[in-house]
Amino acid sequence: MRQVRVGLIGTGYIGRCHAIAYAQAGTVFPLKGELVLEMLAEITPELAAQRAAEFGFSRSTADWHALVADPAIDVVDICAPNFLHKEMALAAIHHGKHVYCEKPLALNAQDAAEMVQAARAKGVKTLVGFNYMKNPTSQLARQIIANGEIGDVVHFYGTHNEDYLAEPRTPIDWHCRKASAGLGALGDLAAHIVNMAHYLVGEIAAVSGDLHTFIKQRPDPKNPALLCAVENEDQASALLRFANGAMGTIETSRIACGRKMGLSYVVTGTKGTLSFTQERMAELKLYRHDEPAERQGFKTILVGPQHPDYAAFCISAGHGIGFNDRKTVEIRDLVNGIAAGDPMWPDFAEGWKVSCVLDAIAASAAQRRWLEVNHG
Amino acid sequence: MRQVRVGLIGTGYIGRCHAIAYAQAGTVFPLKGELVLEMLAEITPELAAQRAAEFGFSRSTADWHALVADPAIDVVDICAPNFLHKEMALAAIHHGKHVYCEKPLALNAQDAAEMVQAARAKGVKTLVGFNYMKNPTSQLARQIIANGEIGDVVHFYGTHNEDYLAEPRTPIDWHCRKASAGLGALGDLAAHIVNMAHYLVGEIAAVSGDLHTFIKQRPDPKNPALLCAVENEDQASALLRFANGAMGTIETSRIACGRKMGLSYVVTGTKGTLSFTQERMAELKLYRHDEPAERQGFKTILVGPQHPDYAAFCISAGHGIGFNDRKTVEIRDLVNGIAAGDPMWPDFAEGWKVSCVLDAIAASAAQRRWLEVNHG
Amino acid sequence: MRQVRVGLIGTGYIGRCHAIAYAQAGTVFPLKGELVLEMLAEITPELAAQRAAEFGFSRSTADWHALVADPAIDVVDICAPNFLHKEMALAAIHHGKHVYCEKPLALNAQDAAEMVQAARAKGVKTLVGFNYMKNPTSQLARQIIANGEIGDVVHFYGTHNEDYLAEPRTPIDWHCRKASAGLGALGDLAAHIVNMAHYLVGEIAAVSGDLHTFIKQRPDPKNPALLCAVENEDQASALLRFANGAMGTIETSRIACGRKMGLSYVVTGTKGTLSFTQERMAELKLYRHDEPAERQGFKTILVGPQHPDYAAFCISAGHGIGFNDRKTVEIRDLVNGIAAGDPMWPDFAEGWKVSCVLDAIAASAAQRRWLEVNHG
Amino acid sequence: MRQVRVGLIGTGYIGRCHAIAYAQAGTVFPLKGELVLEMLAEITPELAAQRAAEFGFSRSTADWHALVADPAIDVVDICAPNFLHKEMALAAIHHGKHVYCEKPLALNAQDAAEMVQAARAKGVKTLVGFNYMKNPTSQLARQIIANGEIGDVVHFYGTHNEDYLAEPRTPIDWHCRKASAGLGALGDLAAHIVNMAHYLVGEIAAVSGDLHTFIKQRPDPKNPALLCAVENEDQASALLRFANGAMGTIETSRIACGRKMGLSYVVTGTKGTLSFTQERMAELKLYRHDEPAERQGFKTILVGPQHPDYAAFCISAGHGIGFNDRKTVEIRDLVNGIAAGDPMWPDFAEGWKVSCVLDAIAASAAQRRWLEVNHG
Repeated sequence: MRQVRVGLIGTGYIGRCHAIAYAQAGTVFPLKGELVLEMLAEITPELAAQRAAEFGFSRSTADWHALVADPAIDVVDICAPNFLHKEMALAAIHHGKHVYCEKPLALNAQDAAEMVQAARAKGVKTLVGFNYMKNPTSQLARQIIANGEIGDVVHFYGTHNEDYLAEPRTPIDWHCRKASAGLGALGDLAAHIVNMAHYLVGEIAAVSGDLHTFIKQRPDPKNPALLCAVENEDQASALLRFANGAMGTIETSRIACGRKMGLSYVVTGTKGTLSFTQERMAELKLYRHDEPAERQGFKTILVGPQHPDYAAFCISAGHGIGFNDRKTVEIRDLVNGIAAGDPMWPDFAEGWKVSCVLDAIAASAAQRRWLEVNHG
Repeated sequence: MRQVRVGLIGTGYIGRCHAIAYAQAGTVFPLKGELVLEMLAEITPELAAQRAAEFGFSRSTADWHALVADPAIDVVDICAPNFLHKEMALAAIHHGKHVYCEKPLALNAQDAAEMVQAARAKGVKTLVGFNYMKNPTSQLARQIIANGEIGDVVHFYGTHNEDYLAEPRTPIDWHCRKASAGLGALGDLAAHIVNMAHYLVGEIAAVSGDLHTFIKQRPDPKNPALLCAVENEDQASALLRFANGAMGTIETSRIACGRKMGLSYVVTGTKGTLSFTQERMAELKLYRHDEPAERQGFKTILVGPQHPDYAAFCISAGHGIGFNDRKTVEIRDLVNGIAAGDPMWPDFAEGWKVSCVLDAIAASAAQRRWLEVNHG
Repeated sequence: MRQVRVGLIGTGYIGRCHAIAYAQAGTVFPLKGELVLEMLAEITPELAAQRAAEFGFSRSTADWHALVADPAIDVVDICAPNFLHKEMALAAIHHGKHVYCEKPLALNAQDAAEMVQAARAKGVKTLVGFNYMKNPTSQLARQIIANGEIGDVVHFYGTHNEDYLAEPRTPIDWHCRKASAGLGALGDLAAHIVNMAHYLVGEIAAVSGDLHTFIKQRPDPKNPALLCAVENEDQASALLRFANGAMGTIETSRIACGRKMGLSYVVTGTKGTLSFTQERMAELKLYRHDEPAERQGFKTILVGPQHPDYAAFCISAGHGIGFNDRKTVEIRDLVNGIAAGDPMWPDFAEGWKVSCVLDAIAASAAQRRWLEVNHG
Repeated sequence: MRQVRVGLIGTGYIGRCHAIAYAQAGTVFPLKGELVLEMLAEITPELAAQRAAEFGFSRSTADWHALVADPAIDVVDICAPNFLHKEMALAAIHHGKHVYCEKPLALNAQDAAEMVQAARAKGVKTLVGFNYMKNPTSQLARQIIANGEIGDVVHFYGTHNEDYLAEPRTPIDWHCRKASAGLGALGDLAAHIVNMAHYLVGEIAAVSGDLHTFIKQRPDPKNPALLCAVENEDQASALLRFANGAMGTIETSRIACGRKMGLSYVVTGTKGTLSFTQERMAELKLYRHDEPAERQGFKTILVGPQHPDYAAFCISAGHGIGFNDRKTVEIRDLVNGIAAGDPMWPDFAEGWKVSCVLDAIAASAAQRRWLEVNHG
């Protein structure tokens, strides 16, 4: 069985999530390749060594350049801060590595386009960590739509709201700066819901956006008396027109009090409606217009072994799946994609398309008018 | 005690709702005036007489002109189709009657402005039937916002979605024609949620709208083989900027499968969030940011006697209120406004402001750019 | 059209609810008789006169004996405290009046049996105010069960929990004394859920009960320093066996923190399940076992005009019904029963059967063993 | 760091769940011992070898006797069918192994008592796989109760309902036979909710039970025309009295249509109430009686890093935990218990207490009266 030797860069919030998924992937799924946790890069040799021990990687380094160049690595997994994605990915591609990169793919669509080009030129495989669509429940949503069970989509309402910066006294960090994060809530959160819109409904043709920074300054983490400017948006909204004619709205916020994992969608079709919120990630609500009027209603389907990719975790319905389980599905796709040529999606091209939509929303907000999304 | 003698025009869907509310208002509330069901107008003398008997009105007529001119009438209650609102209201005002008119006030803001002017000139009192804000639960929402319990509002998301025209085989009716209804879902449904936005957050300064007619033709009711053009929108959405700086989004549809009474809102503030849907009209969800992190969450408050206007219906919390109960609160306001000079809101000026917003949304959709709302 | 002249005794909590329902009944429903609010009795002439004015009754009295004997009364409506039900009902029956009595019918099954006998001997019609089963949603539940849509019932779980006495500092009142109330939570609350069990599943054959008084003393309302003994149960539970073989459990409490209107049921059958809570009185959840495994789930049906007795209130689904609307259905049954001989249920015989079950639960709790319910 | 070398017997439904948890435990938690997946036993050498490869165990065997006697094993993990638990555990204890056994500990309390005695005599550590109480949400429930936040418990309502045998055409299997399973729904499902009642409220002093087999025969799996007798109960209920005076009710069913993971509880106290269902495993509902009446309500707390054992999976609230994550917490307890002497609970003594309660319910049902639970 072909080996898939991973080099992981970054072990913070999302890197740790990857590590848990790597640990369980081979037990959950019958993988088509042998997953090898080869090397891990962190900011210092000590931290790198400690995390390698914790996460079960064989080697560690404080030099990510060495990692991307290492001949024993097949795929580079980039969990470093957003502003490093491009540089790291280009370096990895240069060395002929496949790349598995966290979202957002880049700080803007231009950078993302360069990455797509480089990967294409080198012929390496790519995967972007838009993991929410790997949730069996959202896979079921797509199946239902693809089956025509809700007819033609007429409306998509999607949100990714959280409240991690709702507290004005929370010190400033990299999320709030253009150089390190690019966009604010759009880049950090809305990237997910735009990808979900693509997955469930299709390409977005035009947008009318709005955005605002409500908390304009935040304390310096080391000197709370010093206030620093927040450089990107706390909150954004956009009206959408999909290529297939459906209307849509997406909303995102990082100051939405009470929304802890507020990725949600309602997809309305000519024959029915689907509704989902990630905070109840094992439930999909389905309404069918063709039922008798006296028995119509939204049905709460609990995800189970009849649905995609659930049975690998548990053969009983309703027993539930967790945060890290979605990443485990993603890792399965990574390994099977690299080892056996299975399709790998969302790839860099999708990461770039998401960036195009996000950039169009920001530009539209500045120009106060609708803009076509340029996927040119 | 001063009498408030009502002349009701129209006894269809909403006229019947008024009648039920008139019937119970005096038992539910200690009214400040004596409510007298004086006269009722319908399309034929027979129907008028029958409905007067059913609804407890003393006299009936097939001539609404006679009703609005009748000296024994203090207030004219207009439950006729939308396109007649203006003519009837102006006639009633001409005769010095107070006017209680169903929403939307008129087919467009221009007409509504004329009605406001006429009422002001004549010094009569006016009330528009935006009854959803009379719901004790939504009154509580306003109280909570006014108290500052959720801080400054940063976002309003409001919908009024229904599915009464989701079925393409449903024959065409007056809702679908410009001459009789003016706007489509915007006028019939979104009027409510725009009024609610005004009530909860404040004036809307600018909008970016979108709208579409998905079902372009419907069968003639008498000859189903004959297809007639639908002349107004099935579905509309708009981004909003409020005068106070808050962002917002409203959405409306008459083809939203499964939404039977889909008036809903989520109001996000700097210190908390409120969430409500009319389908669970006795519940308000409240999140407070200032609670300890380990005990934060949305609290479901069941409306009860501690909340505005509930105790009149029942002194036990959670026992619930119904569709017609909101109208009963509205009738209480009408009677106390006319008999005792209590404030009456939403008045024609508010009806006109709602029309200004709706017209701006339609114009913005046509121009594909943001428009200021002209309340000039 | 035959008149139905009502004499109402008692205008407290539930009397007021009756008054609101009387006020709207004739507008909501096309009644088969003419409802006449003839006379009202209260504790003093002043209060009686005031309430008669408020509620629209023609005459008033402080002497209920005069009311039950008055020749212009067809039906006596008893909303007085429980301990007076028997005496008043027997007096009304003696004078040949029909009787509409609030629940519980009597303080115990023995008294209830006497009332049934008296009514039968005199040939008068009777109705007991178990209004929750008049809710269109619960009527729908019964229809679904009767249609066989959930197969044979194998389990009924029902509650009527509230928290009106959860606060130990709440002063003692008539609810807590055997002489005035008989049983505690069982009589005041569980009577409703036992009636609902009868309505939905059928007769109860045997019970194993338990009950307890957690708050053993409460302050005297006039002298809070003086503690008075609570004489009946705060909380009770019972296992049930229905005559048709189904198992069941009912629970009741008046100290159940947070349950404001906690009448709820889950009815499990061999082919499906129904779930309902009165706090969301317009929703019925239905699960059908015969759907494909990948689309199974509980469907939330919003009550609407396709369901029994809803359309009279509103012709749009999901617009909701309120607390007093159930009583309005009950009043319709009363008027049509007396004026046109339509069936009237729950009658005194049902009131007595409910008492038999409640008494059996209390006796079983004392004897620590199962008891047959003696309907003999 | 001390090694904890595991020998796993059985790799079906629950064995697979253990394997996934073993795989991720060391990445999720900083374990106090080195977890070594030493050996695995299955029914044939081939299956054992295959599963060892899948699950990452070093050695495999078709002879569990060899496994329990192997000197390189520290703890034996028993995931074999219920009827083998006793024999395997006694053998493991005989060889001085610690034992981690799935629930129910044994087919009856007598057998469980022998296992407790043997473990105590040999001084080995024991753990029973009642994993639902390891859920961070239920750990939070216990914290809240222990803190006194809901006062003294007055009532516990707990269920474990599923529908895996709701279909009468489902062939008979070991669950339905006394020799292989002992009790039916009580042993397979109610064991969990009894353990949860112990965890949240305390010891159960007396019970009044009821049980019934609704589907009395099922097809032979190999010859569907042949019907075989179902030997144990489909459904059971019991009233409880806790040692601390609280009342309670538990219900269990394996034919409860629509309940896919219906472990749920409502714990009512003198100052508040908690409500939970495993189908929404990341939500705990909390009602506090001491809040102002106009702001009371059930608050939905989404489990997060402020709560026990959640942060190890994810540092963001509301991102959710899955089915296998609870087992991962359990494995952490196992490793830290054996390697570092941390407390390990639920141990065999708890498994035995649960059996005592279940046996008492079955005996009470047969005798139609309350029985004390004999923990003697």
